[in-house]
Amino acid sequence: MTGHSHHAEPIEIWFDFASHYSYLSVMRIEDAAASRGVAVRWKPVLLGPIFRAVGWQSSPFVDQKLKADYAWRDIERQCRKHGLDLVRPRVFPRGSLTPLRVAIAGGDEPWIGDFCREIMRMNFARDQEIDSVDAVSQALGRLGLPAAAIVAQALSDANKNALREQTERARQRGLFGAPTFFVGGEMYWGNDRLEDALEHAARGGH
Amino acid sequence: MTGHSHHAEPIEIWFDFASHYSYLSVMRIEDAAASRGVAVRWKPVLLGPIFRAVGWQSSPFVDQKLKADYAWRDIERQCRKHGLDLVRPRVFPRGSLTPLRVAIAGGDEPWIGDFCREIMRMNFARDQEIDSVDAVSQALGRLGLPAAAIVAQALSDANKNALREQTERARQRGLFGAPTFFVGGEMYWGNDRLEDALEHAARGGH
Repeated sequence: MTGHSHHAEPIEIWFDFASHYSYLSVMRIEDAAASRGVAVRWKPVLLGPIFRAVGWQSSPFVDQKLKADYAWRDIERQCRKHGLDLVRPRVFPRGSLTPLRVAIAGGDEPWIGDFCREIMRMNFARDQEIDSVDAVSQALGRLGLPAAAIVAQALSDANKNALREQTERARQRGLFGAPTFFVGGEMYWGNDRLEDALEHAARGGH
Repeated sequence: MTGHSHHAEPIEIWFDFASHYSYLSVMRIEDAAASRGVAVRWKPVLLGPIFRAVGWQSSPFVDQKLKADYAWRDIERQCRKHGLDLVRPRVFPRGSLTPLRVAIAGGDEPWIGDFCREIMRMNFARDQEIDSVDAVSQALGRLGLPAAAIVAQALSDANKNALREQTERARQRGLFGAPTFFVGGEMYWGNDRLEDALEHAARGGH
C-alpha cells in the first residue's frame, strides 16, 4: 500500500516535547503512517497554556500523584512493547520552548521528523535538558544541519509568534492534552489512538 | 489455547456500572479472557468515594467539559469498532449503588458476567435507570434468576459493608479510575489496556 493511497487524508500530530505520552507517538508515527500511505503534519504546541485554559495548574500527570506514578509505569510497559528506550527524566515536565520553536520553524522541512525524534530521545531516553540554544544546536548538528541558521530563524519574533498562534489554534480546536491527532475534523487523543487515527486517514477520512 | 493455560493468572476487573469506559470492558472481558484461558474476577466498586479521595468533585469526565465531550465521541467510535450498541444516557453518571450491591453479593456466582452485562446494557444501550430494586429485579428476572432472594441478600448490612470494604481496598491499591485491571500486583488502567493485561495474565503474570 505504501505511497499508493492517493485518496488518503494527512494525519496531524499535535505534541509537546515535554509530554511523555507524546514521546511514544513522535517515535512511532512516521513509520506507522508511511506503511499506510498517510502523510504526517507536525504540529508542535506549548501544553502549559492549554492546561491552564482548561483550568489545571500543570499536567494532570503532575498534579495527581497516583495517576502520575501510574503513567510512568504504563509508559515503561509501552516502551518495552514498542522497542523504545526509556530513562525516566530527573526533571518532568522539562522546559521545551526552544525545541518547539525550532520544530515550528522547520515544520515543512524534510528533517522535521528526525529532529523531533532526536529531541524526544534527549528528554526521555538520555535524560538531557532540551530547552536551550546549546541543546537544540547539538541535536541539529548531529543531523548534519546548519544549526546556527536554523536557530536564528527559530528565535525570530515572527516564529515565536507562530508558536503562540499554533497553541491558540490548538485551544480553539478543543485540544486538552498531547499527543492529539486530527484527521480532517476528527480528533483522537492519546498515543493509544494513533492506529485508529491512521486507519481513518488511510480511508481518506471517511 | 482455550482452557489449557494451567499457569495463567486470573485477571481482576474493577469497575462501576456508572462508568462509561467500564461499559466497553465489562461487555468484552469474558470472551477476550476465555480465548486466552484466563479466569475473570469481578470487582465492583463505587467510584464516587475514590474520586473524592483523589481530590476530584466528580468524574474527570464530568468536571472537565472538553474532556467529557471528547470521551463520548471516543466511546461512540470504540463501540462501533467493537460492535457494541450505544445510546448516550440522558443522565451521567447514573446512580449505581443497588446493582453494585447485587454484583458484590453475586461475585462468585455463575451468573455474575451476564448480570453485569445486562446492567451495563440498561445504562448505556437502553438509557434506563439502574439504581433501584425494581431495575435490578427486572435484570435478574430476565436472566431467569430468583430476584427477590438475591436482592434481599444484596441489601443485607453485611453485603453493604462488603461493598464499602471493597471500595476502600481499591483506594488502598492505588486505583483512581475505572475500569482498572489487576494481574497479580500489576495494575492496568482503562479499557485500552484490557488486551495488554490479558496477555500478561495468559503468561502467568510474568
